[in-house]
Amino acid sequence: MEHLSVTNAQQCILESVNKLDIETVGLEQSLGRVLAEDVRANRDIPPYDVSAMDGYALCSADLAKIPATLKIVEDIKAGDMPSKQVGAGQCARIMTGAPMPRGADTVIRVEDTDVVSDGSVQINVKVKPGNDIRLQGEGMRNGDVVLAAGTEITPGVIGILATVKSKQMRVYRRPRVAILSTGDELEGMDDPVDPNKIPNSNSYALMAQLQALGIEPTLLGIARDDPAELAEYLQRGLRFDVLLVSGGSSVGVHDYVRPTMEALGVRMKFWRVAMKPGHPLAFGVLQQNGDGTPKDSFVFGLPGNPVSSMVCFEEFVTPMLRSMMGHARLYRRTLTARLTHDVKHQAGRTEFVRVTLAKDGSGYVATSTGSQGSGMLLSMARADGLLVVPADSTGLIAGEQVTVQLLDGTAFQNEIEFRE
Amino acid sequence: MEHLSVTNAQQCILESVNKLDIETVGLEQSLGRVLAEDVRANRDIPPYDVSAMDGYALCSADLAKIPATLKIVEDIKAGDMPSKQVGAGQCARIMTGAPMPRGADTVIRVEDTDVVSDGSVQINVKVKPGNDIRLQGEGMRNGDVVLAAGTEITPGVIGILATVKSKQMRVYRRPRVAILSTGDELEGMDDPVDPNKIPNSNSYALMAQLQALGIEPTLLGIARDDPAELAEYLQRGLRFDVLLVSGGSSVGVHDYVRPTMEALGVRMKFWRVAMKPGHPLAFGVLQQNGDGTPKDSFVFGLPGNPVSSMVCFEEFVTPMLRSMMGHARLYRRTLTARLTHDVKHQAGRTEFVRVTLAKDGSGYVATSTGSQGSGMLLSMARADGLLVVPADSTGLIAGEQVTVQLLDGTAFQNEIEFRE
Repeated sequence: MEHLSVTNAQQCILESVNKLDIETVGLEQSLGRVLAEDVRANRDIPPYDVSAMDGYALCSADLAKIPATLKIVEDIKAGDMPSKQVGAGQCARIMTGAPMPRGADTVIRVEDTDVVSDGSVQINVKVKPGNDIRLQGEGMRNGDVVLAAGTEITPGVIGILATVKSKQMRVYRRPRVAILSTGDELEGMDDPVDPNKIPNSNSYALMAQLQALGIEPTLLGIARDDPAELAEYLQRGLRFDVLLVSGGSSVGVHDYVRPTMEALGVRMKFWRVAMKPGHPLAFGVLQQNGDGTPKDSFVFGLPGNPVSSMVCFEEFVTPMLRSMMGHARLYRRTLTARLTHDVKHQAGRTEFVRVTLAKDGSGYVATSTGSQGSGMLLSMARADGLLVVPADSTGLIAGEQVTVQLLDGTAFQNEIEFRE
Repeated sequence: MEHLSVTNAQQCILESVNKLDIETVGLEQSLGRVLAEDVRANRDIPPYDVSAMDGYALCSADLAKIPATLKIVEDIKAGDMPSKQVGAGQCARIMTGAPMPRGADTVIRVEDTDVVSDGSVQINVKVKPGNDIRLQGEGMRNGDVVLAAGTEITPGVIGILATVKSKQMRVYRRPRVAILSTGDELEGMDDPVDPNKIPNSNSYALMAQLQALGIEPTLLGIARDDPAELAEYLQRGLRFDVLLVSGGSSVGVHDYVRPTMEALGVRMKFWRVAMKPGHPLAFGVLQQNGDGTPKDSFVFGLPGNPVSSMVCFEEFVTPMLRSMMGHARLYRRTLTARLTHDVKHQAGRTEFVRVTLAKDGSGYVATSTGSQGSGMLLSMARADGLLVVPADSTGLIAGEQVTVQLLDGTAFQNEIEFRE
């Protein structure tokens, strides 16, 4: 089998999966989920024409000659209903959000007026009719779709949901994901330190990558290099929507895992991707019949090297899981940065280099976190992003503009970075 | 009192708060927290010199003349311990991660060799001593600090914590936050729709902004415009670390809230900031004596307009809460984008314009989400970021490079946006 490119492998995965089924959640539990239904406004906002300013409501015809002195007939606060009509030579004192009185077609803000006496005000500016009025339904019109199915629920969206009093909403469910580690060389979290063994860090890094996507996975434990034990673990794992099999770094591990998965009915879609770090990576599908309806489970065989495992998760598992959860935004946000040093590269594989990001006067600058060996998990822990070296590149040069995918922990920065 | 600039107001807030106290959490609950202690390696990784490649371990002295044919004395897999010494004219077949045999100082990868017979191999390249060997402790050295106090716990950091088998760790605790809405004009979530009232969306938008920071707030409900009721609610709220008071949009509301807070011992630090949207915004501190040690509570009086409330939370509450939780990164990530249209601005106040972000060949482009009235919550729900218009600007021009703060929901994007 040929080595697939990263984007071809992503495409193969995304074509294999569908959105998961729909469930109902309460507003308090909805952040980060994706709406599976349109949401409509249940009222006009504002409910009638209201003032956009603290000021005076009047008839624009009275502004033919400026300054104009008008008689104050009423005070209207937000929540009050006006009781009087505003006629020629008259006005009402009005607060932001308060309803416009009949007869008035314009608001003049208080800063453009002078109080003449207790009962009258001088208007100092001329404006167009309709000035500083928010029209009925301008913010939201009763019955209109305000949030379309497919919308990701952010805090701003929750504000809208609360505005239309959606206490519950239909959203795509989250996948159930299991993590299985394999390999005799792995040392469990509760085992004593043995220098000849490798701590089972991958399960926990994968757990955290899933948690960052809003998914609480099940850790199945460590399957030893024994076909029967492995088959038993894999069978348990294949009851989940998604099974992540973290291979040990020993070379033999995929000799066991792949045939055992195939014996259990998993159809392997690919097992070679032209990327670095990333070898070996496998993806398969198990078609199941649960509750009478066909339902697929998806299996990843992830590399045993800690960095390779995390990078493969970023590039392949994340887009798949986000697609299953109904998201339109599947890929890590990218930005352009200036490279601070050369990066060697042999053409043939897409490479993901762990970098930190900083800023200078001209924008973002990217610097490698140091040794890029696939065992160097510290380089991943310290990274802000993954610099993408195109497969056909023969090396990048200091000063070049490069593409960097932002990793978790980069939504915030140290400095405010804006000028006031 | 003068209007403070945004950064001066932020500074005033950040100077008032300290990191919260420290608690212990399990690895599974630690994502997004900040370490309050250094974490040290408990082993060397790798535990001894290992091969970085599948290939042959040999003595570099044997490479004086190339090609060189060497006798294979042993097969070493990962997890195996070598049993033989490699002498002149000899080599060992070795797998990635397997320990180097005594006598060998170099690895040649399998691609640079040809099998001559069952028991010998021809080496086709000359390399330096030490080639393709990962040295003992290269990834992590026993006893070294691998994660410093103050590190945010990302998935990569969890991988390191699992590697050194930290099942529990000391982190800064999260603040307890209460949300209080005020104003007779507010309509509760369970009330029938009344066109003369305003749905209480702010409490829920603030709830979601807090949830996005990892904080599960307490919603205290709606206090009506009655000094006694307000005082009772405020007193409850001031038992929390942070109290967010969401003002109704009626003008009178801060007439009640501020003096009532002051009567309860809150020292107001400021109540005017030169920003748009954002008026009125107040910040105060209550020094308390709980458990014998002085402990401060912090109160924000947030504007009643939904967009103003969310923007003030972004600019002031978020950096404060992140500082209390021990984060070094307090501010929203910014990027530079090209403006697609003019933006009018009167000098005097920093303005935050809700924009969507897209990309073209030259990088990010920013476009206003439409009407920027502070009642237009849909403009916030649709925004990817906040464009910052400097206070002294007299307007921005289409094509200008501007600073945009990224909002929640922007960690991912629609297209992969890298070239392979």
